[in-house]
Amino acid sequence: MADYEKHLKNLENVQGSSYIEKLCKKAVLAKNSVSDLKTSHKNMALERLAQLLIENTEEIIKQNQLDLKNAESNGMAVSMMDRLRLDSKRIEAMAEGVRQIIALKDPVGEIIGGGPLINGLNVIKQRVPLGVIGIIFESRPNVTVDAAALCIKSGNVSILRGGSDAIHSNICLAEIIRRALDECSIPKDMVLLVEDTSRKTATQLMQMNGYIDVLIPRGGKGLINAVVKNSTVPVIETGAGNCHAFVDESADIDEAISIVDNAKTQRPSVCNAIETLLVHKNIAEQFLPKLKGFWGNKVEIRGDKESSNIIKIDFLANDDDYYTEYNDFVISLKIVDDVEEAISHINKHGTRHSELIITKNMKNASVFQNKVDAAAVYVNASTRFTDGYEMGLGAEIGISTQKLHARGPMGLNELTSYKYLINGDGQIRE
Amino acid sequence: MADYEKHLKNLENVQGSSYIEKLCKKAVLAKNSVSDLKTSHKNMALERLAQLLIENTEEIIKQNQLDLKNAESNGMAVSMMDRLRLDSKRIEAMAEGVRQIIALKDPVGEIIGGGPLINGLNVIKQRVPLGVIGIIFESRPNVTVDAAALCIKSGNVSILRGGSDAIHSNICLAEIIRRALDECSIPKDMVLLVEDTSRKTATQLMQMNGYIDVLIPRGGKGLINAVVKNSTVPVIETGAGNCHAFVDESADIDEAISIVDNAKTQRPSVCNAIETLLVHKNIAEQFLPKLKGFWGNKVEIRGDKESSNIIKIDFLANDDDYYTEYNDFVISLKIVDDVEEAISHINKHGTRHSELIITKNMKNASVFQNKVDAAAVYVNASTRFTDGYEMGLGAEIGISTQKLHARGPMGLNELTSYKYLINGDGQIRE
Repeated sequence: MADYEKHLKNLENVQGSSYIEKLCKKAVLAKNSVSDLKTSHKNMALERLAQLLIENTEEIIKQNQLDLKNAESNGMAVSMMDRLRLDSKRIEAMAEGVRQIIALKDPVGEIIGGGPLINGLNVIKQRVPLGVIGIIFESRPNVTVDAAALCIKSGNVSILRGGSDAIHSNICLAEIIRRALDECSIPKDMVLLVEDTSRKTATQLMQMNGYIDVLIPRGGKGLINAVVKNSTVPVIETGAGNCHAFVDESADIDEAISIVDNAKTQRPSVCNAIETLLVHKNIAEQFLPKLKGFWGNKVEIRGDKESSNIIKIDFLANDDDYYTEYNDFVISLKIVDDVEEAISHINKHGTRHSELIITKNMKNASVFQNKVDAAAVYVNASTRFTDGYEMGLGAEIGISTQKLHARGPMGLNELTSYKYLINGDGQIRE
Repeated sequence: MADYEKHLKNLENVQGSSYIEKLCKKAVLAKNSVSDLKTSHKNMALERLAQLLIENTEEIIKQNQLDLKNAESNGMAVSMMDRLRLDSKRIEAMAEGVRQIIALKDPVGEIIGGGPLINGLNVIKQRVPLGVIGIIFESRPNVTVDAAALCIKSGNVSILRGGSDAIHSNICLAEIIRRALDECSIPKDMVLLVEDTSRKTATQLMQMNGYIDVLIPRGGKGLINAVVKNSTVPVIETGAGNCHAFVDESADIDEAISIVDNAKTQRPSVCNAIETLLVHKNIAEQFLPKLKGFWGNKVEIRGDKESSNIIKIDFLANDDDYYTEYNDFVISLKIVDDVEEAISHINKHGTRHSELIITKNMKNASVFQNKVDAAAVYVNASTRFTDGYEMGLGAEIGISTQKLHARGPMGLNELTSYKYLINGDGQIRE
């Protein structure tokens, strides 16, 4: 505890209403010196970070143990405890994650448009870092390293505000990140941790217009809604995934079972798993008994009346069910008349994340992809592929469910903005 | 007045706390049928709109006269009255503006990325409309036609909320736009006008998450700040332009005078005009007397102490002056030691719009372009070129001064998002 107490003491010196403001001022100072770092320089710091993570495995685990002890005495659920836990294998995975970011293309400086204008002005549209990115997240401490590494690679300053549950782990990890930067002569304030995890500091972060260029919340619905509601800084909404699969009348039954099973059960806790199954009325009597036979009691089924006439369901679904992201071995089920009804249901209940049609009918596939309003719209494949790695973007900082700026998995490109460099020789406007 | 009274009566039927909600529900219904309109279909409606504007010149002017009469009795300033006024020439210009939008490339459906993944999944990254765009603006009624036409071309539903000063003009123009849509069998709710211009409706619009995909405020600082502060819907900040010119020690004096004069005086009321002049100390004694001689009393100069030793200034500048967007024949002036001080001053006081260095020194030009944080950074040309038409984007819906989503002039591409269409043949995640 000595380390944390020392930290708290340091904190007190800058505490009060201005703690976040001071942190933000540091961020803005750092921003000006890190926006045009050479790629090799950033990669060097990331490599040093990967090394330091491994070298400090023992210390990281020691600090993490303090968090786990607190969590236990606070009665944290076992599944949450598991997300909080760091062991040598997970620390190796973090280091490996950092090395994968080294291998990604640096987006900063890329020329993405431009050319000469009629009047001879030469315009260059060039990618630049967003600037200062605030990330508010919950108890998984690996987010600290992930998010910081992505921001370093894309030339952004990050202000990380994790949950109090992981504060010892986060302080330890942030120290390691900042040491890696410092050893490579990069201002260590390129990565800043909010060590005061009171609710006040989160709210203050959301109001730091002029300092923070974008806030990205990572966590549950409650966190994301709070940030969307209270933030005056631009926000990118991430993560909410009420995803659907629609089994059309022409679907191949075995393929449909394989895809629906994968989309629901391969990892039900994540945002790209499906929560509702829509089945065309003309295939329901063939498909549903086979699916039920395949699943047995593995998945709890909350179905509508029509489906209950075909298979044994666990509960009758109400409208709330169709809005619910279970993140568990539970699925809502509804029988629909046609692809149009499926689309309407999805556009009403979905969160615009990942949606799926299983069909052999090309026209229905095309209508579904056109009319469903979501980041990723699948034909005949599991929704579980909506992921930065799977889609070839590399590591991701989150999956955007809004339409502004970025949609779907957000990789390094999505952590940049652009500026116009305009060169003339005396042009004036007539 | 009869028409407006009839409108108000219609309005009452859906009035109350749910007026905006009802409007938003209409928008969402329309969204689903207009997102994939054919380009030729949208162009047909725009052409009909251009015709109807000309055909209805008399009626538009009649309604505009009502607004002007009210404005006069409310004691509106003459310059504001001028922005509100519509005459046959301005109506022709509106129609011409619509025809220019017809000529622009339709962004919807463009494939902007994608390809096969290792597992055989085929990914298509395709531009789609943003969805429902709310636009809150002040007294210029031409914004109604401009904004609606840009949204029609980009497949977006627009909810237009203009100021009460222009309500008669706006109702008349919105009716014409909706008639053009209707005559071309496009749902007329693709363009919706908020006819109740009380403050309440603006605030409600800002909270319609789930209905409105983005809000774009167009107007003065007060309006923009209110939207940024109160909106829970994603916002794109536009328009604030505290722009600077820096005359470096190596500048060509005549070129510098020509550019600075153009950037300040060609149209001082707009956001891409400069508000502060920074001059390198080693050129100030040659440059400033020449500029003062050129301007005479045309421009009021608020200078620092150092400059007052070289030329006669009108006022001593304080720090507030350096933060002020005069939008008038007034300029702040400061003598600086070098390009680094100029950059610091700009990054502290600027609004990230358009910034300019006048220099013959390539290194300073490059440092300035790298380090100044703005949408457009100029070398040796007037800042007045930060404009959709001038930069070859076509018509613009505003100039973004934030980094998220779009920066600088926002044309049709910037009114789109994208979605991933993913086609497989049974792929599941291992």
